[in-house]
Amino acid sequence: MSTAENIGAAEKIVTAAVLVIGDEILSGRTQDTNSSYIASWLGELGVRLHEIRVVADVQADIVAALNALRARYTYVFTTGGIGPTHDDITADAVAAAFGISIDYHPQALAIMGAQYKPDEFTEARKRMARIPDGAELIDNPVSKAPGFHIGNVFVMAGIPMIMQAMLDSLRHKIRGGAKLLSASVGGAVAEGLVAGALGALQAKFSGVSFGSYPFYRRAGTGSNSVSAYGVNFVIRSTDQKLLDEAREAVRAMIRGEGAEPEDRD
Amino acid sequence: MSTAENIGAAEKIVTAAVLVIGDEILSGRTQDTNSSYIASWLGELGVRLHEIRVVADVQADIVAALNALRARYTYVFTTGGIGPTHDDITADAVAAAFGISIDYHPQALAIMGAQYKPDEFTEARKRMARIPDGAELIDNPVSKAPGFHIGNVFVMAGIPMIMQAMLDSLRHKIRGGAKLLSASVGGAVAEGLVAGALGALQAKFSGVSFGSYPFYRRAGTGSNSVSAYGVNFVIRSTDQKLLDEAREAVRAMIRGEGAEPEDRD
Repeated sequence: MSTAENIGAAEKIVTAAVLVIGDEILSGRTQDTNSSYIASWLGELGVRLHEIRVVADVQADIVAALNALRARYTYVFTTGGIGPTHDDITADAVAAAFGISIDYHPQALAIMGAQYKPDEFTEARKRMARIPDGAELIDNPVSKAPGFHIGNVFVMAGIPMIMQAMLDSLRHKIRGGAKLLSASVGGAVAEGLVAGALGALQAKFSGVSFGSYPFYRRAGTGSNSVSAYGVNFVIRSTDQKLLDEAREAVRAMIRGEGAEPEDRD
Repeated sequence: MSTAENIGAAEKIVTAAVLVIGDEILSGRTQDTNSSYIASWLGELGVRLHEIRVVADVQADIVAALNALRARYTYVFTTGGIGPTHDDITADAVAAAFGISIDYHPQALAIMGAQYKPDEFTEARKRMARIPDGAELIDNPVSKAPGFHIGNVFVMAGIPMIMQAMLDSLRHKIRGGAKLLSASVGGAVAEGLVAGALGALQAKFSGVSFGSYPFYRRAGTGSNSVSAYGVNFVIRSTDQKLLDEAREAVRAMIRGEGAEPEDRD
């Protein structure tokens, strides 16, 4: 088994996808950090992130991606596009994807209205209270404008601080499955020299996935001035005992190459 | 026009997608930085990144994503999964996606063989010389094992240092279109108060896209201790004169809110 995707398949596997909505990520101007945050958060709950997509602020693109992902995975988390400006079209796109209508949500209006002077509760701000019919609100303790949850889709803000606060409030809504435990061991070995031994470990340990992530660190500016290299091995299983045995086997493999294994976590 | 996607549509628009292959990104353990690097690199060449997908090390997932993306966009760039270990399956997946065979590539074998002692040119390392039939090699000045290029798909390593070196060698193979110019202006304004004015600017300036990206910075640990907030406006156009006019209009909009506009780049 060459991937973590099906590890623990005898147990319940709960999956998720993240859909990042935003031209600013696609332009390279902003680094998406929400996806890795959500990935780690899901992992703790026993949910496995199987796919990430980043699409532009274009309704047809959002609808197509959302419908593909929500049909395939247990949960879908979207980030971005729920602000007050003309380029915030996520709520409308979600309504279109589900084929439902969208309107001002009384509770959302009340929550948001409470924090503004009447003349500052602009049409643009009210627009953030437009929620697809039948959706439940997701609390936003930072700036009030809520996210929402409909079917297996959770719609959140793109600003990391707000997105993280929204996730906090969702913990009890997520039903995880078999939690994928992981361990990482590194060593100053050459990937091409241990690949055979690693493949043998993979063949020996069913129920464990072995990942291999080489690293290079270059000092100086010359084209061949690589000063350090090695491999971090990541071992995953739903079974702690198997994981411990597999980690010990990886340590032994590294020692067999004359290097010292280093636990990464 | 609420998106940069079609700005400059009267001119030639050249598009791209990035396909990131790797369990390590989906686990949240590793932050994908290759996508934003490729996005910026493409932007310089007049190519617009329209979609990013991250999929697991699973052949069926890679094939499905690659076939969807290569049919839709001018170029597709993949990163990851071309190393020597059992979990490196990208080359086989690309061959399967194109419905072609894959075999040891004489030139790749020669390039790689030249850097190893004969007993260190292991089967695992030779595996990295397996290239889909008809593909052209992409030079890897860092660690020799090449990437490859077939049709509109460019297959690169996942290690950022190697990926960046591979991209360097591809510049002459990419034919860009109308280059999307951009400018960014920030200000300590409330997004919900300027949204109306911004929407009016968007309506006025066809051929320009206006993006609005609020930021919050929190000092201290209290739940309501937001200490600074504001909005960065990103303006895009293929026409420098229009871009300059639009930027000046955004500056005036910020001043109209009693704040001082700050050019971000």
